[in-house]
Amino acid sequence: MNPILQVLLFVALVTLASKGAGLLSSRFGQPAVFGEILAGLVLGPSLLNILNWGIFAPRSGIEGLHADLSGVVQTLAEIGVILLMFVAGMETDLGEMRRVGRVAFWAAFGGVILPLGSGAAAAHLFGYGWGEGFFMGAVLTATSVSISAQTLMELKALRSKEGSTILGAAVIDDVMGIIVLSLVVAFAGHAGPQRAAGAAVLWVCVRMTLFFSLAWFVGRRYFEPAAAVATRLGVSEPLMAFVVAAVFLYAWAAEYLGGVAAITGSYLAGVLFGQTSFKERIDRGVHPLTYSFFVPVFFINIGLRADVRQIAGDLPLVLFVLAVAVLGKVIGCGACAWLSGFRYREALRRGLRPGAWHHRCRHLLGDGARGPDHHDDHAGLAALRHSPGAGGRDAGAFRVGGPPGAPG
Amino acid sequence: MNPILQVLLFVALVTLASKGAGLLSSRFGQPAVFGEILAGLVLGPSLLNILNWGIFAPRSGIEGLHADLSGVVQTLAEIGVILLMFVAGMETDLGEMRRVGRVAFWAAFGGVILPLGSGAAAAHLFGYGWGEGFFMGAVLTATSVSISAQTLMELKALRSKEGSTILGAAVIDDVMGIIVLSLVVAFAGHAGPQRAAGAAVLWVCVRMTLFFSLAWFVGRRYFEPAAAVATRLGVSEPLMAFVVAAVFLYAWAAEYLGGVAAITGSYLAGVLFGQTSFKERIDRGVHPLTYSFFVPVFFINIGLRADVRQIAGDLPLVLFVLAVAVLGKVIGCGACAWLSGFRYREALRRGLRPGAWHHRCRHLLGDGARGPDHHDDHAGLAALRHSPGAGGRDAGAFRVGGPPGAPG
Repeated sequence: MNPILQVLLFVALVTLASKGAGLLSSRFGQPAVFGEILAGLVLGPSLLNILNWGIFAPRSGIEGLHADLSGVVQTLAEIGVILLMFVAGMETDLGEMRRVGRVAFWAAFGGVILPLGSGAAAAHLFGYGWGEGFFMGAVLTATSVSISAQTLMELKALRSKEGSTILGAAVIDDVMGIIVLSLVVAFAGHAGPQRAAGAAVLWVCVRMTLFFSLAWFVGRRYFEPAAAVATRLGVSEPLMAFVVAAVFLYAWAAEYLGGVAAITGSYLAGVLFGQTSFKERIDRGVHPLTYSFFVPVFFINIGLRADVRQIAGDLPLVLFVLAVAVLGKVIGCGACAWLSGFRYREALRRGLRPGAWHHRCRHLLGDGARGPDHHDDHAGLAALRHSPGAGGRDAGAFRVGGPPGAPG
Repeated sequence: MNPILQVLLFVALVTLASKGAGLLSSRFGQPAVFGEILAGLVLGPSLLNILNWGIFAPRSGIEGLHADLSGVVQTLAEIGVILLMFVAGMETDLGEMRRVGRVAFWAAFGGVILPLGSGAAAAHLFGYGWGEGFFMGAVLTATSVSISAQTLMELKALRSKEGSTILGAAVIDDVMGIIVLSLVVAFAGHAGPQRAAGAAVLWVCVRMTLFFSLAWFVGRRYFEPAAAVATRLGVSEPLMAFVVAAVFLYAWAAEYLGGVAAITGSYLAGVLFGQTSFKERIDRGVHPLTYSFFVPVFFINIGLRADVRQIAGDLPLVLFVLAVAVLGKVIGCGACAWLSGFRYREALRRGLRPGAWHHRCRHLLGDGARGPDHHDDHAGLAALRHSPGAGGRDAGAFRVGGPPGAPG
């Protein structure tokens, strides 16, 4: 079949499957996103493996013009999560976010330190060296911002006090995770002097700071007047064209210039556009096709890239690391949120934030389940399995290189 | 750069370039689409060749997960034209279309017969055999429905009497063109008996008829109730998800089952959804991202796939064929529209329909400038240039095979 026909058929099936599964999931009192990811697992290599069916197989022969279906789906999924985080950014209540900022920061801090330490200890227990252990721990610090955001939006809790804290902490967590990961890589992987490793980490922090300040400044000062000019232009959808270009440029700059995840950039663009007077119009324009086309592809794609059967052999380790990861996050975030002023129940809710569970699973399933920002690192068990036995301190064996990004 | 970062940067640039060029074009009193295609030519291999710039070059190495930028852009462009034709279908005034149906049919007929004959004669004049000549003529019968539709929508003339005739004729023309092309291929290319060639052409007609009747029946009977059910489902954007799935399935079925162009399928889906009571809501949902993201990529991509410099050597032939093509269409459509009841000025307008000129250019630029339905045939001068000299009757040399499709 022609590549474009494959894409059309595939997207149609994915859209129907994802909405059907989401519906079923919400009938059982679960968030729709849970069903959508599950549908992806069913369609993926774990069970049906539809990308390998004859009708979806790459056409052999002289066709050089088109990309193969799997690559196209990956790209659409990554555009999907970037748009999803943009919508989440627009939904964010900046005032509430500022009020809970301190709690969110400490919750994120606790959610980084405890999983890092306990992950390293757990890996050490299973016979890996401390170098690999800390890498494992660094992987466990990551939070799936996109799944957290989606679940909060479904629960209509994104603008609540808890919702703001959770999302704020998830975003801060992503940034902290990158710093931790670059620390681990720098000090475990560098053959050179410690000073060079320190300089590398410093450079990561400088790039981040520059990106965030510049992006914030530009957005606050120019988005409103630029959008106002755009609406008056005599072409079709001028405002939306400006928004699409700005969001994609922010996402690009976040990863390419700032060294953080692309979705962090589109989230920031969303927060900034959410402050303009065009917020409602932009949301009405972006939401329909994003949630009927791109986002279903993103959630289904998570399952398509994961193979549950691959980890069956490592089951004891998987379950143990899963337990450590979940407990580490719940206790780490919860305790720090409690210490910094949340009441007991709120703090527990913070620890048990949605996305934490799903995300653990995603990461443990290995390098396939990656966001648009995970091109350069290798995650979870897959990394440990590929490592050269225990005791080595060569982080290069983990295939970490280039600017590390946080998971989508 | 990571593949997804390339896509983000590229789409942002394309969106800005296309809207800027469209704006400039409308300042000069031209349709915006003219400027957008021109911008594509400037960015393409004719001048700047941005897809070959270092930042957009495919990343060499182990990255197997992603498609290269060029393939992704091609796919996004093809989704773009499918959505564009869906919007055009929803805009179509079915009552007016029915009233002008007879005129549209004869205009399309004239616009197929005269270019076919004069194209064959012109090629013969330049020393090609009649077999190649008729293939050349068959190529000239094609009309760019998408550009016609877009220009009519910009002029807000799609629902007028002339607009309905033009678009109706363009769609009929596409279907007629496929029949003519399959006739030419069957009788010029078949080594076997004439009866087999006749059966092949008959099969093309049967598939078309089956597809159109079934698609019409399903859409008329089930789109309204199914959309009504969808709106009540408790997932995000259920109506839009249903529409996206239906449009993509119609586009897929049109080409895969019906043997016509995928855009004909999405146009038909648009006409059918335009009859439902959800028309306004669907249009509000589809239009913003379609015209800020997908359609700019489509129009820019036309230019990206064409290389003006390649045809510089054949300039006399190019200009002559261009003149024959334009005159053939204008006189053929105009005369038949006049004969079947249009007044003189209307008939001339019909002959000089927008899109005809652009389309001629697209086709003469060769096989690069193709719609989502041109995977299997090879168009225009490129075909003639690749043919084995004059006089041969082997249509296989034109690389025509599989179900031929009409241009986008």
